[in-house]
Amino acid sequence: MFIIGERINGMFKSVAEAIQKKDKKVIRDLALKQVNAGANALDLNVGPAVAEPLEAMIWLIETVQEVAKVTLSIDTTKPEVMEAGLKICQNQAIINSISAVKEKMDTLIPLAKKYNSLIIGLTLDEKGIPQTVEGRTELACTILTRLIDEEISPENLYLDPLILPVNVAQDQCPLVLETIKQIKLLSDPPPKTLLGLSNVSQKTLDRSLVNRTYAVMSLAYGLDGAILDPLDEELMKAVITAELLLNKFIYCDSYLEAYRKK
Amino acid sequence: MFIIGERINGMFKSVAEAIQKKDKKVIRDLALKQVNAGANALDLNVGPAVAEPLEAMIWLIETVQEVAKVTLSIDTTKPEVMEAGLKICQNQAIINSISAVKEKMDTLIPLAKKYNSLIIGLTLDEKGIPQTVEGRTELACTILTRLIDEEISPENLYLDPLILPVNVAQDQCPLVLETIKQIKLLSDPPPKTLLGLSNVSQKTLDRSLVNRTYAVMSLAYGLDGAILDPLDEELMKAVITAELLLNKFIYCDSYLEAYRKK
Repeated sequence: MFIIGERINGMFKSVAEAIQKKDKKVIRDLALKQVNAGANALDLNVGPAVAEPLEAMIWLIETVQEVAKVTLSIDTTKPEVMEAGLKICQNQAIINSISAVKEKMDTLIPLAKKYNSLIIGLTLDEKGIPQTVEGRTELACTILTRLIDEEISPENLYLDPLILPVNVAQDQCPLVLETIKQIKLLSDPPPKTLLGLSNVSQKTLDRSLVNRTYAVMSLAYGLDGAILDPLDEELMKAVITAELLLNKFIYCDSYLEAYRKK
Repeated sequence: MFIIGERINGMFKSVAEAIQKKDKKVIRDLALKQVNAGANALDLNVGPAVAEPLEAMIWLIETVQEVAKVTLSIDTTKPEVMEAGLKICQNQAIINSISAVKEKMDTLIPLAKKYNSLIIGLTLDEKGIPQTVEGRTELACTILTRLIDEEISPENLYLDPLILPVNVAQDQCPLVLETIKQIKLLSDPPPKTLLGLSNVSQKTLDRSLVNRTYAVMSLAYGLDGAILDPLDEELMKAVITAELLLNKFIYCDSYLEAYRKK
């Protein structure tokens, strides 16, 4: 699974403080820890409270790039922050996110093309998130088609069918699994799928248990990537074991270690 | 999920010794512990080494029935042991197991009818276990059809697509998931499915991790029951959380406790 580490996010108090105080050590530690734990990319989000989001994002990217040569996911709703970020990323970066909202696509797809970025495409439009498998799959198709029209490789796209918290939208949990399966039937080779995993466990008592259980089910349905907490060891063990049981890599007794060294 | 506790099995040394010494306490404790941990039924297997398997099975059944009014699964390859067991079960019992081997069906289906038993039907025949989804599903269909011909309700049947150890037949793990899905398309209402879960983790280093990961994936594919170790707390938490995320019961913050009290 393509793992995007979620921990450098201004929603976390320690990260918000580090951004405010320009404390590079906190950010660098989080970057290195996540990469060592198995993250293939790192999400960067300055959080909602920061005064100068553009400056903060540039600082985050520069700080991380000083210690880790890793794919960065620029997580912002502000196009000017997105472009400033993409401009200074040394590797191919991830636009987190576009959606089927026309204005979003009009603004961000040219950036994706200009910077050859990977793209996370959310299955929502002007009317919100469809409550059905068909509705979400249709929006996935809208985004996929638009990218193909703009001559962007579908290989660069991760479609996210948007898992919601189990405590407020429980019926959507099995439905999102089915949506993963349906999205993968949209083209050949199948489009890639991704989830912002931790959303499923918002405000539940044992978040790690809910996260890892949903991760395993999603993998069984074909999920290709997730934004998650790679420092959650039980989650990572569950993800690796699910991939083993799906025959994605060859069994050996020490498969957990072998996978991590890979 | 319909949970059949696997712990009263002569393969475990303590159980073999208890059978030999007629030590009722060991068996009663295992029965009560498993029921308290959430088992809906208890598998009883005297093990391969016992001198008088018929007498041992009767003793096991009587010992368990003295303390627990629970469904019992008579786990034996010997038809005479099966019938002796079925005869003394106070509740509807489970025949563990029949298969698509003609002789097995000819011998055991009349017993299932006579005692109105539940039946575990393994997808294997004279040629062994088919290595494909289609092959296993066809044998599931053979068993299902035979029961319907004999006017036994499909409600009484659990079809088991036979998971094999990941360390020797890794490619069969995803294939068995798909078989669960295919079996459930054989009739309406869908046939019920079951796995002997612990087989998947034979000789792996962290058996509980492998078991619970496969349990969660199987549930996502529609699994209805499993023979498993209900005393494995992490496994039970994973199973309950998977059922929550599949919207099988209503979310509350203390869903783990709520489920257990149910």
